[in-house]
Amino acid sequence: MSYPITTKTVSLSKGPDPKSSIQVERDAQKFNPQAMQYFLEGSKERGELVKSLIQQMERDPILFTDGSYYDITKTQQREITVVKINRVSRYLESESVEVFTKRLSLIGLFDPQVCTRMMVNLGLFLNSIKGNGTEEQLKYWAFQKKTSQLNGMYGCFGMTELAHGSNVAGCETTATFDRASDEFVINTPHIGATKWWIGGAAHSSTHTVCYARLIVDGKDYGVKTFIVPLRDANHDLMPGISVGDIGAKMGREGIDNGWIQFSQVRIPRFFMLQKFCKVSREGEVTLPPLEQLSYSALIGGRVMIVMDSYRMLARVSTIALRYAIGRRQFKGDNVDQDDENALETQLLDYPLHQKRLLPYLAAAYVVSTGALKIEKASEDILEYLDKAVATGNHAGIMKSIEDMKSLFVDSASLKATCTWLGCEAIDECRQACGGHGYSNYNGFGRAYNDFAVQCSWEGDNNVLAISSGKPIVRHIMGLEKGKTVKGSLDFLNQWKSYTGSGASKVILNNGNDITDVKKFIKALEVAIIRMAYETAKTAKKETFDYVGAELVSLSKLKAHHYLLSEYVRRVDTCGDYSLKPYLNDLGKLYAATVVLDKYSGIFLAYNVVSTTAITDLAKSVIPSLCRQVRPNVVGLTDSFQLSDMMVNAAIGNYDGDIYENYFDLVKQLNPPAKDKAPYSAALEAMLNRPTIDERERFEKTMETGEILSK
Amino acid sequence: MSYPITTKTVSLSKGPDPKSSIQVERDAQKFNPQAMQYFLEGSKERGELVKSLIQQMERDPILFTDGSYYDITKTQQREITVVKINRVSRYLESESVEVFTKRLSLIGLFDPQVCTRMMVNLGLFLNSIKGNGTEEQLKYWAFQKKTSQLNGMYGCFGMTELAHGSNVAGCETTATFDRASDEFVINTPHIGATKWWIGGAAHSSTHTVCYARLIVDGKDYGVKTFIVPLRDANHDLMPGISVGDIGAKMGREGIDNGWIQFSQVRIPRFFMLQKFCKVSREGEVTLPPLEQLSYSALIGGRVMIVMDSYRMLARVSTIALRYAIGRRQFKGDNVDQDDENALETQLLDYPLHQKRLLPYLAAAYVVSTGALKIEKASEDILEYLDKAVATGNHAGIMKSIEDMKSLFVDSASLKATCTWLGCEAIDECRQACGGHGYSNYNGFGRAYNDFAVQCSWEGDNNVLAISSGKPIVRHIMGLEKGKTVKGSLDFLNQWKSYTGSGASKVILNNGNDITDVKKFIKALEVAIIRMAYETAKTAKKETFDYVGAELVSLSKLKAHHYLLSEYVRRVDTCGDYSLKPYLNDLGKLYAATVVLDKYSGIFLAYNVVSTTAITDLAKSVIPSLCRQVRPNVVGLTDSFQLSDMMVNAAIGNYDGDIYENYFDLVKQLNPPAKDKAPYSAALEAMLNRPTIDERERFEKTMETGEILSK
Repeated sequence: MSYPITTKTVSLSKGPDPKSSIQVERDAQKFNPQAMQYFLEGSKERGELVKSLIQQMERDPILFTDGSYYDITKTQQREITVVKINRVSRYLESESVEVFTKRLSLIGLFDPQVCTRMMVNLGLFLNSIKGNGTEEQLKYWAFQKKTSQLNGMYGCFGMTELAHGSNVAGCETTATFDRASDEFVINTPHIGATKWWIGGAAHSSTHTVCYARLIVDGKDYGVKTFIVPLRDANHDLMPGISVGDIGAKMGREGIDNGWIQFSQVRIPRFFMLQKFCKVSREGEVTLPPLEQLSYSALIGGRVMIVMDSYRMLARVSTIALRYAIGRRQFKGDNVDQDDENALETQLLDYPLHQKRLLPYLAAAYVVSTGALKIEKASEDILEYLDKAVATGNHAGIMKSIEDMKSLFVDSASLKATCTWLGCEAIDECRQACGGHGYSNYNGFGRAYNDFAVQCSWEGDNNVLAISSGKPIVRHIMGLEKGKTVKGSLDFLNQWKSYTGSGASKVILNNGNDITDVKKFIKALEVAIIRMAYETAKTAKKETFDYVGAELVSLSKLKAHHYLLSEYVRRVDTCGDYSLKPYLNDLGKLYAATVVLDKYSGIFLAYNVVSTTAITDLAKSVIPSLCRQVRPNVVGLTDSFQLSDMMVNAAIGNYDGDIYENYFDLVKQLNPPAKDKAPYSAALEAMLNRPTIDERERFEKTMETGEILSK
Repeated sequence: MSYPITTKTVSLSKGPDPKSSIQVERDAQKFNPQAMQYFLEGSKERGELVKSLIQQMERDPILFTDGSYYDITKTQQREITVVKINRVSRYLESESVEVFTKRLSLIGLFDPQVCTRMMVNLGLFLNSIKGNGTEEQLKYWAFQKKTSQLNGMYGCFGMTELAHGSNVAGCETTATFDRASDEFVINTPHIGATKWWIGGAAHSSTHTVCYARLIVDGKDYGVKTFIVPLRDANHDLMPGISVGDIGAKMGREGIDNGWIQFSQVRIPRFFMLQKFCKVSREGEVTLPPLEQLSYSALIGGRVMIVMDSYRMLARVSTIALRYAIGRRQFKGDNVDQDDENALETQLLDYPLHQKRLLPYLAAAYVVSTGALKIEKASEDILEYLDKAVATGNHAGIMKSIEDMKSLFVDSASLKATCTWLGCEAIDECRQACGGHGYSNYNGFGRAYNDFAVQCSWEGDNNVLAISSGKPIVRHIMGLEKGKTVKGSLDFLNQWKSYTGSGASKVILNNGNDITDVKKFIKALEVAIIRMAYETAKTAKKETFDYVGAELVSLSKLKAHHYLLSEYVRRVDTCGDYSLKPYLNDLGKLYAATVVLDKYSGIFLAYNVVSTTAITDLAKSVIPSLCRQVRPNVVGLTDSFQLSDMMVNAAIGNYDGDIYENYFDLVKQLNPPAKDKAPYSAALEAMLNRPTIDERERFEKTMETGEILSK
């Protein structure tokens, strides 16, 4: 290939040409990245919808996002976020819930704070009313008051307190019934009960759904939900309401998280959300028939986060892989060391670099299928529940509750596992880009800072992992007593074959077994069974708290089982045969790296895998799977169909012209003409300061010494 | 204990009392935290020096740092950093190098950007002159021109290029000798050779040490070093010099990293650094006798980073552990569930929480000893080399080169392993504080963003790990040919006993073996031997690139071996017997968690540990070690002697009053009186907007429809 010396700028010798590297590989792709995107998004219709939504927002003068996004201060972010929300609200007014949800999920990738700041109202606030309020209450607040259109009202979610996060039932804000005035008095008794981290509270919200202890005649009925106005129609604070900004955060600075204190704030009795729990005019309390029902509001967020994880995995692996194709470093073993003209080796041709990055590419593919499955399951179950409640179908409600339990375990384990995986991916992909990964303009810093919170909010990952690991162990205990298991954990029913005398049966004997994905899924099941079985024994001897670490591991293995099973099912039923070989390789790579390599200690300790197989894993299985995936990397990342706006990383652009793009952006945002800093005077004063003797008025010099010693 | 209802603010019921929790535990400590600090800092003298330096800076009106640090913008950070450097330069003028180095290392914890921005001049720039320049050149630039006092001159380190980082020898900037004028012409031939990431280049530097290819009469002699002035005494850019700000970064925004392009810039021949390589007036080139010597400049930074890692581990584990003592969540298995008045369980009483955090506490202790050892070794070796060079002692130089090779392997593996551990610790400690970990005021976000770069700069971690893993494998290859190994890897000489017919001998058979630290070190040695042996086989069959992942693992295991061995030696020789039981527990915990639990797959695959021992590890060894360390946590964190300024985290203060401190800081920095945002008008305009029909001028209404359909 000839190389023009003078292109955009003058070159006096041949410079790097990363653009050609990516183009050569792109030209050689053998499958259709558009067909692949349909697989990733679940169908042609969804794939096309995603693209057209992206196109619409990419063209939108206000929503369009580029590298300047990484330069704005917290104050600017707060304001721009509001301007963008205002803009998005116009789409919202005339869009179906399905389409708008998809839109929000996409905004969640390229401007996550806009998504979250809207979701506190549209998601948390309204879902809480939907979950806890009557149909009429929902109609009133959501539609008559137009909260669902971000018009007139803006709600926030007043659950977490300064001293109470995960343990919602321990909240200490009180809602005391005052029979005389037919009101509730909302009060924050002490600093620990201050509502904290409340998104939207600092500046935006007009109302909050307040989680507070219902007190009637001195009796504490536990935590219930109440609508409390915070600001009037003039956006001025109501009396007795104190709110403040909780200030600087690691990321998502565009959200006005705040704290709220209530000092004897009175609300009418009918501001209580009373689908399940009621207080009559006389102060008689009707408690909910089924406490669990009120937690359905939390499921939606977790499900959405699994989809966020897919998109983040896709985005960061695209950046790092495009860079690894354009970037060359050292002459590796694949280059003739004596050839002076040989180019340096592309980063991605190093086996270690492949092993570092390709697992996250595979993870994006696998997680995409699990995210779609849990999204669908959640929609179906909540819809069924709604109908059952509306028609008073008690058997239906009971069935929904069973389904909800399973959905809770699935979504909790997926939320925790996929967000941890997402964080890990962002960090590894950043490191794989060396120093350039540390520049904000390449996206990783902000991605990490924004994404890290996904491990803590909407249920802390460890708390979720414990609560989704515990049912696995309880199932084993139930099986020992003759019960059976339904749902995504039904493989536990085979427990007897793999414990006791079957405890030493090895499932994966060698490298070939590892790449047999169905055998691999079986191995995962056996690992879960054996670990749960042993954990049950310890938990009985000690306590459940004692086995917390094992519960977390079980939850992770369970999530991988869910993901991998669904991925295999989707690949098996995929109508486009031309894609299968590529999809199969990714599934195997995921199993070998994200699962087996990471949990090899567990698989070995429970005899699920032989030491021979683990040796094969490192020596041949992973290297050869990586080698198989390597030539398709450009196609597999192009298939995410992420436009440059969605990627928003100078070294991750589609054209692969990493150095020109990066340098252009840096110069555009930091014009070199300003060669003296605004604070240059301070710096020059330091450099041009007099000597220390002069500044000490020559008081300590030898000459002075002679005088003062006389 | 009685609880006052009205203290700082009114409480209407009993709120949380974290302060008492920490105080009760502090009162119960059985060892002297001051004596422990002397152990951590290496001696009483060093311990006292550290404290008095911290006190001096804590009192300094300009250097003092608090929560407001987390609120300032990039522009403000840049300026404040210069003001602080100006202040630090006054201490520098009258302080010994040893004391000043200690001071800088401490600044590196509480204001890392100040430390780094100075170090580009005092460390990288001057070390490069020291390593590559003659004694007279050093005297001139460092002392006569007062660069070493940050007066008159400010140097930067012009090594990395946009398209060349790790492969320094591949740099493409040229320094062409012009015989006619007796000058070098420095030139950036194309965009890829643009100097990039250069700390201090954007605004501060007057000079750079430029790494450029020496070209004489068309012949390329490889990369050498040249002093190139960037700005004149008026701080205006020299002709032919282009510099720019590289803009927003993930962290350390106070540093003015920049890019530099040279366009036919002429410097006198004597601006070349010519300790080892010379160009005569006639253009005759004398090449260095030993190329390796010029890399000694890089060792210092890596050694300092190991110490940084210790301090970061100490700091973040202190924050998370103090919080875990004050914070209560759920009623755990240690609480009587029927007792309505029982307090919730302290986070740190959950076994999982102990397992998550205590390993990093142990790591701080272990890494402190390794950091001191490598610091001392580096000082000794470089001093010896300087003397040998000064006296022309050839045998001495050769000995130094051997020592330097060993020092390179030790420092490279420690730098990579300890910074990865540091990042991991920051992240885990943040997550362990739940949502509050995500507030900037609790330190983790900024700590992560600032520390993350330690994995990429001063030698990318993976590149360093490969280059320190490779000599281990090469040693095995040498041993097979009858050679022997000296230095920190001399245990490799026993390779024959543990490979071949000895390959299946298990070293750790059960839980007791794991807690026998000397046996554990032996196990680490055997793991390294066996892995290196197998890796050698594969490398011979395939290539060294093929076994990159194994080299990284070997480098990590080697670093843990170095750290643990030194820790055990220090504990064994510690004169204060009262400390030993506590120190021993930490060593065992480190071995069990940071090493064995994390690398269990490797230990099992190479038969170093039995499956029984691994089962014991999870079931009893780790839980019981954690239980032993648990009561001493307050003492062990107090022993770091980090004042509140050094911790700089509202929930990590000494008094443990987590909620009051945090709320006070939030209110102080975000005054609640400003209850409307500056951008409130935009928000109110959205909320008070007319309906969609109105805004669409009623053009789409049914009524209009009737008119337009007529």
